[in-house]
Amino acid sequence: MTFRIGIDLGGTSAKIGLVNSSKKIVAEGSVPSADFPDPKDLANHVADVCARLSAGRKIQGVGVGVAGDIDSNKGVVRVSPNLGWKNVPLKRLLSRRLKWPVTVDNDAKAAAWGLYHTQVPRTIKHLIVMTLGTGVGGGVILNGVLHRGATGSAGEVGHMNIEENGPLCNCGNRGCLETYVGRPHIEKKVRAALEGGQKSSLQALFNKDPDLITPLAVSEAAENGDAYAISIWNDIGRALGIAVGDLVYLLNPQMICFAGGLSQARELFLKPLRETLALRSFKTPVNAVRLKVAANAANIGVVGASLL
Amino acid sequence: MTFRIGIDLGGTSAKIGLVNSSKKIVAEGSVPSADFPDPKDLANHVADVCARLSAGRKIQGVGVGVAGDIDSNKGVVRVSPNLGWKNVPLKRLLSRRLKWPVTVDNDAKAAAWGLYHTQVPRTIKHLIVMTLGTGVGGGVILNGVLHRGATGSAGEVGHMNIEENGPLCNCGNRGCLETYVGRPHIEKKVRAALEGGQKSSLQALFNKDPDLITPLAVSEAAENGDAYAISIWNDIGRALGIAVGDLVYLLNPQMICFAGGLSQARELFLKPLRETLALRSFKTPVNAVRLKVAANAANIGVVGASLL
Repeated sequence: MTFRIGIDLGGTSAKIGLVNSSKKIVAEGSVPSADFPDPKDLANHVADVCARLSAGRKIQGVGVGVAGDIDSNKGVVRVSPNLGWKNVPLKRLLSRRLKWPVTVDNDAKAAAWGLYHTQVPRTIKHLIVMTLGTGVGGGVILNGVLHRGATGSAGEVGHMNIEENGPLCNCGNRGCLETYVGRPHIEKKVRAALEGGQKSSLQALFNKDPDLITPLAVSEAAENGDAYAISIWNDIGRALGIAVGDLVYLLNPQMICFAGGLSQARELFLKPLRETLALRSFKTPVNAVRLKVAANAANIGVVGASLL
Repeated sequence: MTFRIGIDLGGTSAKIGLVNSSKKIVAEGSVPSADFPDPKDLANHVADVCARLSAGRKIQGVGVGVAGDIDSNKGVVRVSPNLGWKNVPLKRLLSRRLKWPVTVDNDAKAAAWGLYHTQVPRTIKHLIVMTLGTGVGGGVILNGVLHRGATGSAGEVGHMNIEENGPLCNCGNRGCLETYVGRPHIEKKVRAALEGGQKSSLQALFNKDPDLITPLAVSEAAENGDAYAISIWNDIGRALGIAVGDLVYLLNPQMICFAGGLSQARELFLKPLRETLALRSFKTPVNAVRLKVAANAANIGVVGASLL
């Protein structure tokens, strides 16, 4: 049996898993990354946990998925707002302590790679993963290879343009996909509408506490037939449909897989997404793509990172 | 010396070239495709020219670029509006007459492949080509491989979404890149504005003959400082900038190369394109991409097809 180590490094914690050749986590640990602002400190603590988890076993490689802009060629975290890092040579820091090969990449790419290896039929070689959560991330896998591009920045689906003069995005641009699909944007929009007197079964919840207005609450209201809640998911699906249409025309994938919390709303966004996609007239690539919602897999980031 | 044959098959003619290992055309011929509505007839005439051009030499392979939706795996032309073809097994028809391996692909992909091999530094492995002409076609080359996708339909950059409710496209959808950048759309828009009394130095030309209003005329007026003509190129550049921004975020190419007649307007569209691209805030991929206008190469389709 051979083993790999996967690390999902976020602003709150570093989740670390020992992954066997069946892609299962057989031992795990974590380091509270927020407690170690110095990257060197954090890397040392992470390396300690890796060494402990390996327990003398032969490790084929260590993979790290980090939220942010990563130079995967050099293993450098260029910018990670969540960790407050700039130009941290994470690969070098870990390699000083661990004798195994270390790969560092973006966390959404790691998760996409994990899904590709655990939830997708082997016949699929062209896959795009879209992770729908606070932000919208992605991974592009073509010919069975995770596409990184010139600077390891590929797969940034969340900031594809939906509408030139659309809502302001956290990135500074306007009309990015994320402004239609990202959790905080949806919450803000729904709360503002409810505040403004929008007729909806969500009003009772909003009056109790605006913080109770979450995508889950909106999806429950929609499932119960609330017209306003349904219109919110229609807007989400339509924006996703525009982006998916571009992906299908550009890359002609066999499958697009949706992951992340919001993806669990399934048909609520898939139905309007399919309707928008159906407006595209080149039927060969449109009919060739399968749309799939990933099974909820809490540790997909760790497993994916281990396989990098 | 080894040779290949390239065929650029359009609705008017099939251009056929014998290409040497330096990627130069050393002998050429053509067949008036419009004269042979039956695909079998046309294939036979094309095969005759191929046999004649080869003149007993050893041919490594024959490549055909066809305008339309092509199944490059099977060598079948699914649909070619220009040729009036549906489900024509072109590879089989040519292979019956020629003993060399035959590859059939989309003409824009063939041209992109030709540019990649003749006009781009060898360090470039991630290249996107956009051909700006009557339509807008493209080719996506990643890791030095022409990306075809699940059904050979990849690279359809001309029908990326720019504006959900934008102008009606020939494809039936709205707001495709082509409706902002395709030659007939530009001509129609400018002629309508001039008809409506738009102040512009182009009025004199328009009054002589509306057909004189071409992208070349608009670019000449813009070069001479005509504000309206400049605004037209600004619109073209902005639409291209939105599409290029998506390409850069998704695929993180090293280079995007513009080919086709309209690309010769160069700075007239590149300047507003760069301004639009600069609105994107992830600077790593934006700074990594080089924008290039291809040298005018009339036979790039033939050379590219030969290299398929």
